[in-house]
Amino acid sequence: MQSIFRGKHFINLEDFTKEEVDTMLEVSFDLKKNFAMGVATPYLQNQTMFLMFFEQSTRTRNSMEAGIAQLGGHANFLDSSNMQVAHGETPKDTAIILSRFGHAIAARYCNWGIGNQYLNEMAKWSTAPVMNLQCDLYHPFQALADLMTMKEKIGDLKRVKVSIIWAYAESHKKPISVPVSQILLFPRYGMDVVLAHPKGWELPGWVIEQAKANAERFGGSVKVTHNEEEAYEGAHIVIPKNWGSWVNDQTGATTVGASKVIDDRLLAQKSWKCTEAKMATADKDVMYMHALPADRNNEVEDSVIDGPHSIVYDEAENRLHTAKAVMTLLMGGR
Amino acid sequence: MQSIFRGKHFINLEDFTKEEVDTMLEVSFDLKKNFAMGVATPYLQNQTMFLMFFEQSTRTRNSMEAGIAQLGGHANFLDSSNMQVAHGETPKDTAIILSRFGHAIAARYCNWGIGNQYLNEMAKWSTAPVMNLQCDLYHPFQALADLMTMKEKIGDLKRVKVSIIWAYAESHKKPISVPVSQILLFPRYGMDVVLAHPKGWELPGWVIEQAKANAERFGGSVKVTHNEEEAYEGAHIVIPKNWGSWVNDQTGATTVGASKVIDDRLLAQKSWKCTEAKMATADKDVMYMHALPADRNNEVEDSVIDGPHSIVYDEAENRLHTAKAVMTLLMGGR
Amino acid sequence: MQSIFRGKHFINLEDFTKEEVDTMLEVSFDLKKNFAMGVATPYLQNQTMFLMFFEQSTRTRNSMEAGIAQLGGHANFLDSSNMQVAHGETPKDTAIILSRFGHAIAARYCNWGIGNQYLNEMAKWSTAPVMNLQCDLYHPFQALADLMTMKEKIGDLKRVKVSIIWAYAESHKKPISVPVSQILLFPRYGMDVVLAHPKGWELPGWVIEQAKANAERFGGSVKVTHNEEEAYEGAHIVIPKNWGSWVNDQTGATTVGASKVIDDRLLAQKSWKCTEAKMATADKDVMYMHALPADRNNEVEDSVIDGPHSIVYDEAENRLHTAKAVMTLLMGGR
Repeated sequence: MQSIFRGKHFINLEDFTKEEVDTMLEVSFDLKKNFAMGVATPYLQNQTMFLMFFEQSTRTRNSMEAGIAQLGGHANFLDSSNMQVAHGETPKDTAIILSRFGHAIAARYCNWGIGNQYLNEMAKWSTAPVMNLQCDLYHPFQALADLMTMKEKIGDLKRVKVSIIWAYAESHKKPISVPVSQILLFPRYGMDVVLAHPKGWELPGWVIEQAKANAERFGGSVKVTHNEEEAYEGAHIVIPKNWGSWVNDQTGATTVGASKVIDDRLLAQKSWKCTEAKMATADKDVMYMHALPADRNNEVEDSVIDGPHSIVYDEAENRLHTAKAVMTLLMGGR
Repeated sequence: MQSIFRGKHFINLEDFTKEEVDTMLEVSFDLKKNFAMGVATPYLQNQTMFLMFFEQSTRTRNSMEAGIAQLGGHANFLDSSNMQVAHGETPKDTAIILSRFGHAIAARYCNWGIGNQYLNEMAKWSTAPVMNLQCDLYHPFQALADLMTMKEKIGDLKRVKVSIIWAYAESHKKPISVPVSQILLFPRYGMDVVLAHPKGWELPGWVIEQAKANAERFGGSVKVTHNEEEAYEGAHIVIPKNWGSWVNDQTGATTVGASKVIDDRLLAQKSWKCTEAKMATADKDVMYMHALPADRNNEVEDSVIDGPHSIVYDEAENRLHTAKAVMTLLMGGR
Repeated sequence: MQSIFRGKHFINLEDFTKEEVDTMLEVSFDLKKNFAMGVATPYLQNQTMFLMFFEQSTRTRNSMEAGIAQLGGHANFLDSSNMQVAHGETPKDTAIILSRFGHAIAARYCNWGIGNQYLNEMAKWSTAPVMNLQCDLYHPFQALADLMTMKEKIGDLKRVKVSIIWAYAESHKKPISVPVSQILLFPRYGMDVVLAHPKGWELPGWVIEQAKANAERFGGSVKVTHNEEEAYEGAHIVIPKNWGSWVNDQTGATTVGASKVIDDRLLAQKSWKCTEAKMATADKDVMYMHALPADRNNEVEDSVIDGPHSIVYDEAENRLHTAKAVMTLLMGGR
């Protein structure tokens, strides 16, 4: 076990070595077992953190707030109505003051070109760990929970085929942060990652390059395709999920909470839905994952997400255990 | 003392035997005494629950959130701006995920024909207790606090005359859940319950039938009348309170937070106000109860609610102790 | 150490003797040291309080909520969307009920002619301490944090020249509560206080009289001037900050959160900005203080607030330690 986490920021899993991510997983599994047994884990007794949400959240807010309470601490939940950012409060001011008031700052800020920059600016000034609850580029807590779920189901992930597949949705244009974090992380565990999407929904080039570099170093592989069939074929895990087109519509494309924007370009991709027929071409034990909430009947057929291959609830639950592990490692210790 | 509460849902007091309700009261009195003495009661150390409010609340939210904190646990307060129900999150998804994140789920959802159904759907899927913070049909926490207050003041409630009386209000159309829960519960303690209201403000027929069955079994009585005088005459306890007319205006009639709707039918009932003159016809020690907030000068004269017969603050305080008792019994133990 | 705080209200520092304020400072310094060392201070274990915010806040809410959590307790955060004040809940009802539910009530209510009255009405009925999180007249937590910061930097404050200087701002019309609390408190520590502002931005006459009486008793001095230069000249501490003109525009002038109102009278005072040039006329070690958030480039030049004389972050941090000290002394003990 390493013990060098304390005080580090958690903005992007790329900032942590594989051994450090392994430790996060190990602690997550320990915390899950203790939670199941009702064993006390008061590792952050009377510690306090600040959860800043520029956009709405359910799983992230609840996993963090309940998680730190289970560890003996407390989170102040702040949404845009409780923050004076509009009154000229800069990320520098916010970071310096909140980090002096408590033990960590976490923020969700998905606005394209703004969110990650805001987090990094806070990290520059904060004397306490800054945690990323999803930004325009990364969603490390989701990727870590996904990895934990895969480990739990499969064990050794080497040569496991996981397909990250774009899916049609009408709910709202979503950030690219989930697929970006996944394609960067999974190859580090030796997985064969296929990224499939229609033209116009590319992830940034530097992401693919970094993902391929990770694959090369750790023995996995990364393939990008516009062919959905190829992604399903023989896959052990599929993650069909919508994301916005930063290519065509950078500003605002990735804004969470924006009103529905259904244009002709999007409508033309309506066939990118996860169906039972497509699932039948995958491995017989294929697992369906989704960060939830899903846009039912657009992203996925009910019979798939509610069916025997779906592991979405286990995936959701692991958001709690991984959140607690990261908080414990970064805020607790020594 | 029974010890079979753990994990049960708390949606309707009818789901609990009289012995179980007795135990809830006993624990409520214990917790009240300990609170007064400053004795620690950390029965739910580091446990977490989720409070979902589809409508506004003061007493319920504060009694639950402060209550679990006094028991050593923590509640995530979620209002409609923090829930992704609008983003297609089903009660099934919500219940499965939140129950895996913590130790209980509680919700207020008063929309007619929707609220109770939503709670029951959550209860079907939740692996943790689901608690009803008021729905379109029941408000078990309020009825339990009312019962505790009566016990505290009177002791043996057999043959005590309690009158549940409709009152005129302009504030907003309120759910029928308070009178429904009261008329079902009080006869189980041998009370003589009079329900008085103008025509058009009937409670559902099956409620009256069940209340009468309870009276028969436990030695109380239930009488329904349109005669307000009869309700006040000789009463030991009066509970004059407005509720909406589900008969005339089912959809929305019971919505909390709706804008004022004052129509001719309602205006014609303006005389249904609790006055000193009416109180003078009751027992000399008659007690006035109200769940608060009251619509002053419409539901009740100030001289009554602020006068010597009013026990509204003791009734309000007991919301805390009963809430803590229910949480302790359902979430703690063994 | 005195031990007579328990149960007292904290609405105005004038209600406390100098020895009591000394004790608050002493406890603040102790708590700050323990916080730095990670020493547990669970003085309010499982105690609960209610934070009522009629207007937005960042520092106050976060210092109180994190502060009580670090002391082992919990605060229910209530903003106007979670309070039924609009539904006819009176301060009497609120105070009686919330004080029976928990261990303290704190409120921010800055509306001119209403806020302080509301707090005093609550204090009349509450069985638990009522704390002022800023009203139309006083902001005792801010003044106490300012005093702690000065003590920390300078030690003995006798004959220290502190200038409270009105500054131009466009953000919104602010309450007079910060300068009022400062001009009343600082002379009690023997400081030479200069209050400088344009005509029309006077503080109430009774405030100046009381401040002068305090100065006479404790060996400080109070001078009011319209000459900004005089305020800066040789000052050891300057606090240039905007406040609304209750003289010209009583109703609403001090409302926090009001929309910008820039009229000709205000625009004529644009020169009242804290500049490097003005700072150069002060003592060579002059310190710049501001309660934050500042209206940058209106109230103050960036080079001053971000420069070597600025102690705004230390001042902000001390909001936490003083808040914890007041809570500990009023809610804990014996």
